Amino acid sequence: MTAPSLALWLDLIGIFVFGISGAMLAVRRGLDAFGIAVLALAASLAGGLLRDIALGASPPAALADSRYLIAALSSAVFTFFFHRQIERVTRPVMVLDALGLGLFAVAGCRKALLFGLEPLPAILLGVLTAVGGGVVRDILVTETPRILREEVYAMAALVGAVMIYVADSRGFDPFWSAVVSILAVFIIRVVSVWRGWRAPKAPGSQ
Amino acid sequence: MTAPSLALWLDLIGIFVFGISGAMLAVRRGLDAFGIAVLALAASLAGGLLRDIALGASPPAALADSRYLIAALSSAVFTFFFHRQIERVTRPVMVLDALGLGLFAVAGCRKALLFGLEPLPAILLGVLTAVGGGVVRDILVTETPRILREEVYAMAALVGAVMIYVADSRGFDPFWSAVVSILAVFIIRVVSVWRGWRAPKAPGSQ
Amino acid sequence: MTAPSLALWLDLIGIFVFGISGAMLAVRRGLDAFGIAVLALAASLAGGLLRDIALGASPPAALADSRYLIAALSSAVFTFFFHRQIERVTRPVMVLDALGLGLFAVAGCRKALLFGLEPLPAILLGVLTAVGGGVVRDILVTETPRILREEVYAMAALVGAVMIYVADSRGFDPFWSAVVSILAVFIIRVVSVWRGWRAPKAPGSQ
Repeated sequence: MTAPSLALWLDLIGIFVFGISGAMLAVRRGLDAFGIAVLALAASLAGGLLRDIALGASPPAALADSRYLIAALSSAVFTFFFHRQIERVTRPVMVLDALGLGLFAVAGCRKALLFGLEPLPAILLGVLTAVGGGVVRDILVTETPRILREEVYAMAALVGAVMIYVADSRGFDPFWSAVVSILAVFIIRVVSVWRGWRAPKAPGSQ
Repeated sequence: MTAPSLALWLDLIGIFVFGISGAMLAVRRGLDAFGIAVLALAASLAGGLLRDIALGASPPAALADSRYLIAALSSAVFTFFFHRQIERVTRPVMVLDALGLGLFAVAGCRKALLFGLEPLPAILLGVLTAVGGGVVRDILVTETPRILREEVYAMAALVGAVMIYVADSRGFDPFWSAVVSILAVFIIRVVSVWRGWRAPKAPGSQ
Repeated sequence: MTAPSLALWLDLIGIFVFGISGAMLAVRRGLDAFGIAVLALAASLAGGLLRDIALGASPPAALADSRYLIAALSSAVFTFFFHRQIERVTRPVMVLDALGLGLFAVAGCRKALLFGLEPLPAILLGVLTAVGGGVVRDILVTETPRILREEVYAMAALVGAVMIYVADSRGFDPFWSAVVSILAVFIIRVVSVWRGWRAPKAPGSQ
């Protein structure tokens, strides 16, 4: 093991916060310790697994490096013991989910560009990395995925993926580009929930 | 970019018609612009992504060639503005779905044979390519997938995959083999809905 | 085709029993012949496909070797004709599922170790191989997956994956290590259902 790079840190923090969002959903549904672990793993690792499998990065980072699994399982253990403290924060699942969304949109789009994808597919893969874990998490408990229920969700991830593409293609500083893009996703998502922003519907549909 | 080959045309037209079927479902469910884009992308690209990932074709065509994404997003934009006109056609989702089913069964089976798969797996992968997008589309809105609800759905795709395998292994003309196989799938599927054809149930089950 | 190795036998028997579990679910839901085939294929092949795709084993065993598909389709045909006889055995889906769980946990973890994964990811991939087919099967009929509903399910697979890792890393006899690990999963799972074992819930959750 080497010192974690910036890309690894983005992944590990994203895994931890998405893991808590999955584990909190499991606690609310009254699931047992294994249900908590399953939803934490699904929410935190599915997006990156999809990304790496689509890129042909084999084995995927989540399986090649044990720290990924340790981060995911830590989020399950942490939530198992501290879910009441987490719950006291307002809307913790939404806020953690918004942070994970930003971290994974940036990490996913960057990795796709690194693998030589064209801009449009790289941006889409960034969005898929960001929303994939939440989709699998919600489908496992037979809920309509948040990406379809919430007005401004995929769009927040899209903005972050576009920003990191523009910043990286212009050669801006990798660290600050990531920070600014992640913050943009986080703020768009949180403010959109807070203010009730809505995306347009097709003209004439109800 | 080069002039699209026959295989690419099959994929792009299939993506466009499956994309409309996904986008129309989103409009009916009252989803916003992003929901429409998500269901269009899922319905049109998931089958081919599954195919390419299973074949180890990396990166998958949907990510390697921007025209795939442009075709999928075009179907979402087209449906966003013209869903009322599409709706006026009788059962548009079913008819477009039947066309996509034929296009993808043929394209999927052919690509699998090209990658050296044995006949049986190649035929199954053709069926998976054809039905995969619809399964993901339906699961995202927590509906039982059409493949399980509709009597003659997987079977229509199966017929097309078998036909293209037989035609290609005998060295028939690639263009006309594709046209005839796609038409066969389309006709079987549309006529089966129109006439209420049913597949047999297990003896003694209700 | 060569004589099936131990690993191939584990896979083929696992496919057959998981296939029956999927086909029996389809019969109970009143699905037709194609619905039975779809659920048999999904339940029996999805776990191994996920494993091979995650490992970058391309093409996956289920597509590289026609015997995999033949085993899966045989389970569908067998169930189509003999579902009443299978039903007479008490809780046949649960018992067959428990056997498949053991076979796939062992086969999955072993293949992952063979591909050079570290112990923790290899064990997780064993569990994913074991539970993946059942998850896809349940999601296709819009049921909450058994892995979340049943108290001791993922845990049984986990024990088997850990046992085979320990046995293989100490150089024990491959055949008997597999038999003992598979039996352990089977017994833990069946006894846990019979005795109503429960995994702990998070403190303070209801």
